[in-house]
Amino acid sequence: MKPIDFYRSEFISYMESKFVLREPVNLYEPINYILKLGGKRLRPVLALVTAEIFDGSYKKALDAALAIEVFHNFSLVHDDIMDAAPVRRGKMTVHEKWDTNTGILSGDAMLICAYQFFENYDPVTFRELAKLFSKTALQVCEGQQYDVDFEVLENVALAEYLKMIEYKTAVLLAAAMKMGAIVAGTNNQNQELIYQFGLNLGIAFQIQDDYLDAFGDPKTFGKQVGGDIIENKKTYLFIKAMESGSAVFKKELLDLYSIQPKEPEDKIEAVKSIFQESGASKATQEAIAFYTEKAFKILECLDITDDKKLILKEFGENLMQRTV
Amino acid sequence: MKPIDFYRSEFISYMESKFVLREPVNLYEPINYILKLGGKRLRPVLALVTAEIFDGSYKKALDAALAIEVFHNFSLVHDDIMDAAPVRRGKMTVHEKWDTNTGILSGDAMLICAYQFFENYDPVTFRELAKLFSKTALQVCEGQQYDVDFEVLENVALAEYLKMIEYKTAVLLAAAMKMGAIVAGTNNQNQELIYQFGLNLGIAFQIQDDYLDAFGDPKTFGKQVGGDIIENKKTYLFIKAMESGSAVFKKELLDLYSIQPKEPEDKIEAVKSIFQESGASKATQEAIAFYTEKAFKILECLDITDDKKLILKEFGENLMQRTV
Repeated sequence: MKPIDFYRSEFISYMESKFVLREPVNLYEPINYILKLGGKRLRPVLALVTAEIFDGSYKKALDAALAIEVFHNFSLVHDDIMDAAPVRRGKMTVHEKWDTNTGILSGDAMLICAYQFFENYDPVTFRELAKLFSKTALQVCEGQQYDVDFEVLENVALAEYLKMIEYKTAVLLAAAMKMGAIVAGTNNQNQELIYQFGLNLGIAFQIQDDYLDAFGDPKTFGKQVGGDIIENKKTYLFIKAMESGSAVFKKELLDLYSIQPKEPEDKIEAVKSIFQESGASKATQEAIAFYTEKAFKILECLDITDDKKLILKEFGENLMQRTV
Repeated sequence: MKPIDFYRSEFISYMESKFVLREPVNLYEPINYILKLGGKRLRPVLALVTAEIFDGSYKKALDAALAIEVFHNFSLVHDDIMDAAPVRRGKMTVHEKWDTNTGILSGDAMLICAYQFFENYDPVTFRELAKLFSKTALQVCEGQQYDVDFEVLENVALAEYLKMIEYKTAVLLAAAMKMGAIVAGTNNQNQELIYQFGLNLGIAFQIQDDYLDAFGDPKTFGKQVGGDIIENKKTYLFIKAMESGSAVFKKELLDLYSIQPKEPEDKIEAVKSIFQESGASKATQEAIAFYTEKAFKILECLDITDDKKLILKEFGENLMQRTV
């Protein structure tokens, strides 16, 4: 096993070799643009690392990793249109730099391109990867739809919220790892276990994202702290406060979530203190620990050597400390 | 072989059995809506008929036919957003009935669902079908992009225009037929020939669409006659008139194509007479005959019995007379 940076740079070189500018330029230029915007390349790195964990070469996993990364970026392009987001990774979003139609059509082309990267595998592997990919991609769409649906609901149950983040975020991490396992040719049980590892780590990661959005360090958290509160987003913290808080907290929170003041600092502080006093903050931290521990327990059942298990555990720990 | 109506109704029954309403409703309801809007079901019928032409059962081709039809409807949903079209088949378009975001996301889900229908085939067939499907789907996106690009160009060369209609329309008809051939298990040469048959027939069909838009019978042509002229669309007729007409015709045509009068009748008549007097109308009819004949010549090389060739020829003739 090599350090994470090695897999990341191998992946980026491979991706750049595959995305040279093609005709029609107005279709492919936006694709190259979004793919080169950067990012941690977490999903493709997971696919490559997992292949090596199961004694396959990371090189065999490059195409699957690329499919996952292209799909992830497709979903960013279309989500940014739906959210009318002007900025992505500090740069203009595709629909902002070009226009909405370009964003739609280039996104469509990316989704198709993603499938094409599986064509380099033998028929049996191709079918397995494409099947997992389709199932996952559809879940991501469903997750996005639930997220949109939740915006107009006053109450979202915790179980529904967990399903939404599982679909919208966790399944793609899980699928990336399972694809690495598939191309390495490990047994079905290992494939299923690594999927569950990725899934639970992904859920923990997403709940942590909710937590850090309110309580993270502005210096290290990539986004604006308090952003979810400003936008009245129904996060894990919010749902927990609504579920377990007192009637007073609940009313106060609903009132705060019905306004969008120009100077949001007071609102952010008021909401954060409800999160803390209602016990939602503590419950959220417990949930993060619960899903992280669940992921680590699954590792124990994997049929691999202990040093490999340790690599995965350290990877998970780094991810939860946001150093990967 | 059964009559065309038989294959059409078998296809529709199969499709309806596969599209029952699922959660999240806001994602899947628009999909069911667009799929039930009707239409001739030309592409899936072509897939089923072709399977039987090559001695396979149409039943084996139902999933491939469904993938093609779902993809076709996906492209309609996204194209209608891009064209800001309010009406499709006499009913509200998806983005009009719901909203643009719903159209984008439901369309994405349809594209993924289309791939899933190939999962019912064995790995080798699955890979062949999915590969052809991806190649075709990407060409359709490229064709759509060329179409968008052409809107702002003053001059479009005939060769470029032909490539655009080939990608945007003809390749999907060709792929539908080739998929029927693949599931029937016929040899590669037959597969390639039937693809070329579908491709040339598709090109003829699209040029005819341009022709009928100006010179069709308002009673039988499904769309508003003169619609392309009203929208200043660069059709085969327009490009031919610009290429082969005199300088006077050319200037007059450019002037007419720079205006969008509220009462378009005079403009339509003026443009039509330029199409006729410049020889563009005749040249367009010749092109339709050329590609239709080219398709029929390909039939002769197919390794099937003469009565099967006759069925395909009659199907082609009916299509060009717009009775299918």
